[in-house]
Amino acid sequence: MSDPVSGPVDPARLQDVLDGPWADVRTAHRKHLDARFLPVYGESGDQARERISRLLTELPVESGIASAFPTRYGGRSDAGGSIVACEMLAQVDLSLMVKAGVQWGLFGGAVHALGTERHHDAYLRDIISGDLLGCFAMTETGHGSDVQQLQTTCVYDPRTQTFDLHTPHEAARKDYIGNAARDGRMAVVFAQLVTEGRRHGVHAWLVPIRDARGAPLPGVTISDAGPKAGLLGVDNGRLSFDHVRIPRDMLLDRYGQVAEDGRYSSPISNDARRFFSMLGTLVRGRVSVGGAASAATQSALTIAVRYGDIRRQFSAPDADREVLINDYLAHQRKLLPALATTYALHFAQAELVAALSDAQRDDSPVDEHRQRELESRAAGLKAAQTWHATRTIQMCREACGGAGYLAENRLPGLKADTDVFTTFEGDNTVLLQLVAKGLLTGYRDEFGSLDGWGRASFVADQVREMVLERTAARSVIQRLVGAVPGRDEEVAVTHRGWQVKVFEDREKHLLDGAIRRLRRGAADKKDRPFDIFNDVQDHVLAVAAAHIDRVTLEAFVAGIENTADPAVRALLSRVCDLYALSVIETHKGWFLEHGRLTPARSKAITAVVNGLLKELRPHMRTLVDGFAIPDEWLHCAMLREEPGRQQAMAARVGDQVDAASGAA
Amino acid sequence: MSDPVSGPVDPARLQDVLDGPWADVRTAHRKHLDARFLPVYGESGDQARERISRLLTELPVESGIASAFPTRYGGRSDAGGSIVACEMLAQVDLSLMVKAGVQWGLFGGAVHALGTERHHDAYLRDIISGDLLGCFAMTETGHGSDVQQLQTTCVYDPRTQTFDLHTPHEAARKDYIGNAARDGRMAVVFAQLVTEGRRHGVHAWLVPIRDARGAPLPGVTISDAGPKAGLLGVDNGRLSFDHVRIPRDMLLDRYGQVAEDGRYSSPISNDARRFFSMLGTLVRGRVSVGGAASAATQSALTIAVRYGDIRRQFSAPDADREVLINDYLAHQRKLLPALATTYALHFAQAELVAALSDAQRDDSPVDEHRQRELESRAAGLKAAQTWHATRTIQMCREACGGAGYLAENRLPGLKADTDVFTTFEGDNTVLLQLVAKGLLTGYRDEFGSLDGWGRASFVADQVREMVLERTAARSVIQRLVGAVPGRDEEVAVTHRGWQVKVFEDREKHLLDGAIRRLRRGAADKKDRPFDIFNDVQDHVLAVAAAHIDRVTLEAFVAGIENTADPAVRALLSRVCDLYALSVIETHKGWFLEHGRLTPARSKAITAVVNGLLKELRPHMRTLVDGFAIPDEWLHCAMLREEPGRQQAMAARVGDQVDAASGAA
Repeated sequence: MSDPVSGPVDPARLQDVLDGPWADVRTAHRKHLDARFLPVYGESGDQARERISRLLTELPVESGIASAFPTRYGGRSDAGGSIVACEMLAQVDLSLMVKAGVQWGLFGGAVHALGTERHHDAYLRDIISGDLLGCFAMTETGHGSDVQQLQTTCVYDPRTQTFDLHTPHEAARKDYIGNAARDGRMAVVFAQLVTEGRRHGVHAWLVPIRDARGAPLPGVTISDAGPKAGLLGVDNGRLSFDHVRIPRDMLLDRYGQVAEDGRYSSPISNDARRFFSMLGTLVRGRVSVGGAASAATQSALTIAVRYGDIRRQFSAPDADREVLINDYLAHQRKLLPALATTYALHFAQAELVAALSDAQRDDSPVDEHRQRELESRAAGLKAAQTWHATRTIQMCREACGGAGYLAENRLPGLKADTDVFTTFEGDNTVLLQLVAKGLLTGYRDEFGSLDGWGRASFVADQVREMVLERTAARSVIQRLVGAVPGRDEEVAVTHRGWQVKVFEDREKHLLDGAIRRLRRGAADKKDRPFDIFNDVQDHVLAVAAAHIDRVTLEAFVAGIENTADPAVRALLSRVCDLYALSVIETHKGWFLEHGRLTPARSKAITAVVNGLLKELRPHMRTLVDGFAIPDEWLHCAMLREEPGRQQAMAARVGDQVDAASGAA
Repeated sequence: MSDPVSGPVDPARLQDVLDGPWADVRTAHRKHLDARFLPVYGESGDQARERISRLLTELPVESGIASAFPTRYGGRSDAGGSIVACEMLAQVDLSLMVKAGVQWGLFGGAVHALGTERHHDAYLRDIISGDLLGCFAMTETGHGSDVQQLQTTCVYDPRTQTFDLHTPHEAARKDYIGNAARDGRMAVVFAQLVTEGRRHGVHAWLVPIRDARGAPLPGVTISDAGPKAGLLGVDNGRLSFDHVRIPRDMLLDRYGQVAEDGRYSSPISNDARRFFSMLGTLVRGRVSVGGAASAATQSALTIAVRYGDIRRQFSAPDADREVLINDYLAHQRKLLPALATTYALHFAQAELVAALSDAQRDDSPVDEHRQRELESRAAGLKAAQTWHATRTIQMCREACGGAGYLAENRLPGLKADTDVFTTFEGDNTVLLQLVAKGLLTGYRDEFGSLDGWGRASFVADQVREMVLERTAARSVIQRLVGAVPGRDEEVAVTHRGWQVKVFEDREKHLLDGAIRRLRRGAADKKDRPFDIFNDVQDHVLAVAAAHIDRVTLEAFVAGIENTADPAVRALLSRVCDLYALSVIETHKGWFLEHGRLTPARSKAITAVVNGLLKELRPHMRTLVDGFAIPDEWLHCAMLREEPGRQQAMAARVGDQVDAASGAA
């Protein structure tokens, strides 16, 4: 279907496409964030924290990291810009990105989204300027994924018109809280609200935790979470509260209010539904983490691809120099499909950021279905991007051999810092479950709970008739799929419509099967409701994964459709072939099991993938240059030494020995 | 085929089987290596190096880490014991293991294997006692995998009867050298030997690099490789030599001698063959690294399984407590197949260690075919074990959520420290190629070069008629395969003979196909010899992987066959089913493509795997307890807090809220 790629492509034109609508935010970062903001290798935890704290307040205004806040408090009312800023910061220093994400995304974002005007007036300016540093205290030692079950309590006492915030036992302490161990002066604390002797579910309070000199306030116990695998510059800590008195107006009361006399009121009557509406407003964090993971993946791939273009190993029989490792098929098999997936995810992320930005810009009433679909997509893409980051950065480390293990070559930091991304802002497996639940119920169940288990039989009863929803570029996709001629077997595997059809078909069939199994389970296992869902958990997770793959491919297809430059379009189209066929190849077992591929066609796909690797080999460097990461930001010793080492590695041992022999 | 597992199995009886013939070495470690030897979390690089250097010389004699050396110098002539000691040290501290491996395995091992009596008499006692610390200086910045192409030169000058050791350019400096940056006083340096104006390939010299006070000797430049992803306690450095004079008798001359007048002689006339014979004597290091990776994997799995048995998340509709995460199918899908593979690899490693020990104990002439097969198996199992470690430790980190990211819970250290194991002692991809080459040529080519490329056309001409060699327990395997009744489709997928047959069949078919493609390539691509091999590199690597899978399964089967205890046997048999069927499930695409599985049977395997997970769930804890890692060695905060936290996590939020409401 796609034109062949003829000759080299200008990376700058590729960059134009990738930079997308927030190109100005990206350009400002590349211009204003200099070497001062880059990681320092080998520093101690204390040094890293001191440095990152300092840099946090030195971030140039141009960075736009706080741009999601309303203009009247000093923001730009631009949620998309703040996410793109996170992506850019992730290529500079991941500790700095996470610290900034805690301050302006989680802490500031919660005050903005869950608080009301008096909170905004009192705090947003200082939060935006960094004069007031804060924490987001949701997770507890005993409850991370199941946040509805948090055990911290906050009980209203009408006599004093205060809340009593309390940590009943060690498992209820707030844990892994960024900004808590060192810098946070306030925290948004999530706890079970109790008033008039009744509980109303989880709410959030703005709680001072340190005095002006940094000492913990009375009743607040702060401890350090201690050394971590990475993100050394982020001061994660633990918070416990011993009957701390909180003034009534520190309840962030957009979704639930407590009157002076203790009467509770809320625009949303159901506790759980209210809670998930509150969580929904915080979706930006998840999108930022997914985008940051992809940005770090781009850094790692840029390093590995550039190294593979200077590193030589083993002589070729038909060349007078050793072979560049990028010329080996096995090396291409590692780097190129990962690079293609990174491209696909970039387009999916860009589409999500645009959709989120639209949704948050709108003052029109929230379309609940659309909101849930957006949350589901954010959850799914966060999981896909962070797992892809973990796998790909690891692969890049290995692809660079011993050099990849040295801190000076950046990869160890990228790996260690991003490692927790699969866990924070929602454990990936739990997020996939959320995605699956949305698909199974058509986003129609009463709330988007993360909990796929407690009401398993309820869900099993609810599961809808399967109707596949196309998320992106509906008409384009429809046209492509409609254009698939005749019988599948006769269509080239590079036919885009066929590829999309295959992805859709896998999702449909998996979803259909899961629904059937759940219904059967609900009938057969009435006495073992846990087993209804648990026995098909692997199947349900596969539905979610297939859905994310399809959404990603459609976004890539739409992105190509919107690309005007014919050379860039041709190259992207080849990359898209590689992405689509790699995914099909990975799941060929499923396609063969279900008669979706014949054995011959399945083998043909492997041959076509290998052909694409050969075709894309000359463009590997272009594809990473398109990410436009400044050389300085790569912060990688072995790439700086390029010219000298390249020459030396090209020298053949014979020359050295001849020289030495002559000298002897 | 196998009996069902009825009731709990005593972990101590499982341990007896796993501890195997060197149980005494394992017991001595568990007894003598106390908390003093465990990692210190959060220390700086300098602190770690200081501590590990000190501990190295405090290792108790009982540890047997130096037991491979001859009895008359203070060793025990027990190569197997020294490998098992590495495995045990890997569960204590990986920096300590690697530092010890450099000192006694690589440095001492090279002096022992490549030197002759005068070197042994002069140095082995001090090496064994740790009074003489040394390095193994093989890898160069420009050449790691292709060690035949090292560019350091060592030129003999008969006038002074010395060698001139020289680093001609930066890419030829020795790099990543353990013990070099801080502690090494001597180094075994590999360089191109030149005498009488002729080169004779790579040889090794024993070279003093520091004086008694630790200062570099004249002409020797030592620098620090700097911070690394892990192994902070190991002082990796870089060495350069500026025309350093080496006395003639410092050539480790077992395989090549230079007379006073400069005449070169060797028992092996071919340079490359001699070099690979030299390398072959160092195979122990590779086996130690593979074993250490598996040992660390056991630590990680023990932590994740035990955590999953106390960590609860989400309520079940039919229970009054939240669900243990080990009860979720998705969690079992992560942990149990990895655990089964760890068991399989344990038996494969044990068999290899026994075979190596036999081979090195023997004073009879070396059987070259057997030696190559052993080297190939060491290479393949090193790759399999280290990749499995990287994947599994990462999975365990994620399975423990945020807790898995904290240093105090051990997993970050296990991940970071083992990460380079896929690279050092041979890059895994290069090692798989070595395995494939052995299979393609029946270990009959003139030398076991790592280089599958330079002589690709030669190899393509040579490839043998495919005859599958069974490595282990030939008769047992033959009997099992012979017992497969009738047509495949009618045999239960848990029939052991069928499983083995399927593994063998995959290897045979892949090998056969690779041979055909190479022969065709050799005919078609005479003008592009590089492409002959490169175009089938993925296929060739798949041959190696299938071979290692088969060798591993056969070792597991033989291990079960040798187990007398019926309860342990029954449990291991189920674990073996899970291993075998997980591998088949992973490669179901291939089996379906090649008509080895019908779609129905392929789906049935997934159902059987899920059934095995259910059956093995009650034995998860037993299976990790069988590894018998002392609690103290796990060095994991969240497991120490077990009782208190378990109680707290079991508390339902309702109780807390009720209590709080009452108080208000």
